[in-house]
This record gives sequence, structure tokens and C-alpha cells, in this order.
Amino acid sequence: MKIHVLTLFPEMFDGVFGSSILKKAQEKGIVDIQVTNIRDYSDNKHKQVDDYPYGGGAGMVLKPEPVFHAVESITEGRNPRVILMCPQGERFTQSKAEELAEEEELVFICGHYEGYDERIREHLVTDEISIGDFVLTGGEIPAMAIIDSVVRLIPGVLGQEASHIHDSFSTGLLEHPHYTRPQEFRGMKVPDVLLSGNHQKIEEWRMEQSIKRTFERRPDLLKNIELTPKQLEYLETLKRKNEKS
Amino acid sequence: MKIHVLTLFPEMFDGVFGSSILKKAQEKGIVDIQVTNIRDYSDNKHKQVDDYPYGGGAGMVLKPEPVFHAVESITEGRNPRVILMCPQGERFTQSKAEELAEEEELVFICGHYEGYDERIREHLVTDEISIGDFVLTGGEIPAMAIIDSVVRLIPGVLGQEASHIHDSFSTGLLEHPHYTRPQEFRGMKVPDVLLSGNHQKIEEWRMEQSIKRTFERRPDLLKNIELTPKQLEYLETLKRKNEKS
Repeated sequence: MKIHVLTLFPEMFDGVFGSSILKKAQEKGIVDIQVTNIRDYSDNKHKQVDDYPYGGGAGMVLKPEPVFHAVESITEGRNPRVILMCPQGERFTQSKAEELAEEEELVFICGHYEGYDERIREHLVTDEISIGDFVLTGGEIPAMAIIDSVVRLIPGVLGQEASHIHDSFSTGLLEHPHYTRPQEFRGMKVPDVLLSGNHQKIEEWRMEQSIKRTFERRPDLLKNIELTPKQLEYLETLKRKNEKS
Repeated sequence: MKIHVLTLFPEMFDGVFGSSILKKAQEKGIVDIQVTNIRDYSDNKHKQVDDYPYGGGAGMVLKPEPVFHAVESITEGRNPRVILMCPQGERFTQSKAEELAEEEELVFICGHYEGYDERIREHLVTDEISIGDFVLTGGEIPAMAIIDSVVRLIPGVLGQEASHIHDSFSTGLLEHPHYTRPQEFRGMKVPDVLLSGNHQKIEEWRMEQSIKRTFERRPDLLKNIELTPKQLEYLETLKRKNEKS
């Protein structure tokens, strides 16, 4: 997969793209990530990329020309999806990550401080994505999040080391608690069942914990999944307990 | 504000903490950000920080000792909020950012690949936060997002250049479209009203665009805000149009 990131702060990406999974995916040749400075595509001798808003108001607005020029130059006539990082966009989810992981090429546009000239949004961009209802200084950190979550879904990227993290959202339930050595730490003990060697009981405990945790923290997730009869029965027990207390 | 980040990949933070607002906030002395490698607090001669899960299963689990030791060592008896980056946590929002911006010290724990030993969650952590329902390789990118959104709220951090980005979520409505020069780009024109010089009309157009966009993209936001009589009237017009079409 080819990934392009357009930004006014290319150096922000060094740490994330140079570490861990994203580094390995590039070394393996599975992903090619190019970070491009929008400023390089300004046709202005002062390399200006933003200007005052028509109609007045505070803040600057990213001009259309350098962004159109940058996208056209790096995509060379191909027609990839162009994603605008934007608080007004569609909320990013795991299913969007799966959808994007099917693409051969993606372009991410990150604004910073500025608003965008509306013509970028209307005529250049195919997707507007937000990672949540909070205010960030720019689209760079959201782009990192999306790129990490997309790249790890491309076949060949993940070794076994990381593949288990899929658990949480692929079953639709939150993960059960994990414990490792030591068996006792400052008086805090590992639950007996996990030390029992009884695999059936362990599986049952984990399933119950998973349902309990989802019920307590994210009951909204329970609407979207089909539980087994056993899981349903446990959920009903939890609900009855909850009503009594 | 003092911010500590505990991670197994300290180098991931270089780009983000060394640029833009976060760099300036540190240079101004408003924020002190320390990134700590959890591995430095392993009491194991191989610097091991994770181990196999009790009860079996794929993946590794972050051990309790190095994380407890790291937090205790860096907080030196103070009692700051300790935030675990975690897909099962509370969803991060702007109001959580505002809450955290009031603190004098924050500790962020970022896992990577591994699960966490449950004792960390139960006995060390005060907040579990998630930025959304998608799978990431680690808690590093979410921690960057939260730190950026929190730090920019601390008085003195933002100059005027960036302060307007508050708009989007502080009014509760999505922002109206922005336009800047050129007035016409490849046949795409700036709306006439923005060139009219009539400030009342411009304000009205922007208000209407803001409501229209929120109605179309995020009707859920409309439930949480009190609209002026004029805004309500426009919203009703939109709804009637929508029913007809």
C-alpha cells in the first residue's frame, strides 16, 4: 500500500513512522509511506499556504491551490481516496479501518491551526474523518492513529506478537482481565481459577468476565453482537443482580 | 503542568513533543513533559517487562512490578492522576480534556502489543481512557492526542493563531465553511455573500451553514445545546425541507 501524508509539520511523523509496526511494515516493503510538506507546493514566492478568511473572522484558512497541486503531483493521474482529517468528519471506527485497508493507495491531508478552504472539501476530498469529539491542534495525530490501525490490518504486517490485540473489537465484547507473574504482588493475588489448570473453567471465567465488563462499561456494544445461549444466560443473571442492588 | 509518559517506545514521542504547540508550551515553561521507558524499572536482569498470561492464551502481559515502580519513582510520593490508555476505557471527549487541564500533574501509561496485568488497572490507575472503537498497536498515539488536547487548554499556551479552533466544539455546533483567496479557482467560486461586505448577512449565512452542517452530519449534537429563537426557526425550516424531499 502507498500512503501519502500532506502536512505543514512533516517532522511530527518521524517518531511514529520510524518505530514499531509502521517501521517494520515499511522495511518489509508492504507499505510505502511518504510525508509531503504542503508548503513545497505553494506557487507563492513566500511559500505562503494560508490566507485570511473571506467575510472576516479570526484565524487563517488553508488555500486551495497548494493542496490541489500537492495531491495532483503525488498521485500522478491515479485516483486514490483522499482523506481529510477533520473534526466534522465521519467518526473513525474499526470497520472504517477494515475498509481502508483494502485500498492500494491513500492520501491524508492534515490541517494545522487553520481551517480549510471549502473547495478542498468539496472537490478534492473523498472522505472526511474525525477520531472523536475533542479539539486538537492539527490533523497529524489523528492521521497517525488511522494509519496505524489500517496498516496493522494489511496481511503480512503483524507477527504473532501483536495479533492478539484484535481480540477486543473482533468478538464485539471487551477483553477479560489478564494476569501474569508474580502470583502475588504486595498482597494482590492472581485469581485461583487461572492457576487451576482446568481449561474449561478458565474459558468460562474469561467469557463471564468479558460479558461482565462489557455490560458494566459498554452496554451499547451488546446490542450489536449475537451471544451464544450460555453467554445470554450469564448476561441475564448479571442483569437480575443489577436490578436487585 | 507536569506530564509523565510511561512507554516501551519513548522514541515514538520525539516528533510530536518536539513540534508546534507542545514544543512551545515546554519552551515557555508552562508544561514539563517527561517520557520514561518502563523497561528502566524492570528488576529483572534481562530488563523483561512482560510475561505469559496465567491461564494460557496468545500474547504477552505487562507485569505489575515495573509499572508500579516507575509510577512510584517518578511521582515521589505525590498523588497525581494516573491514566491508562486502554480500549476498554471511558471515551475521551472535550469535557474530559477540560477536566484534565485543571490538574497539576498527570501520568500516562501506554501499553504496546501486550495486555496489562489487571492489578495495574485495579490498584494503580485512576482513569482509563480510550479515544475510540478502533484497534491500535499501542497507547502511544492516543496519549499524544490527549496530551495535545489538554495542553492547548492551559492558559498561556495558545497564541491567537490557534485559538479559533475552539469554535467547533465550544458552540456545540459544527463550524461553517471557510473560504480564502483566490476568489475563483478553476471555476470554483467563493459564495457571493462573503464578498458582499454586509456583516449582518455574513453572520446570518455562517450561522445557517453551521446549523445545516450539524443537522446533516451530527444531529446528535443538536440535543445538547440551547439554540437561539432565530437558530431554532432556521432548524425547523431545514427539517420541513428535509421531510418534503
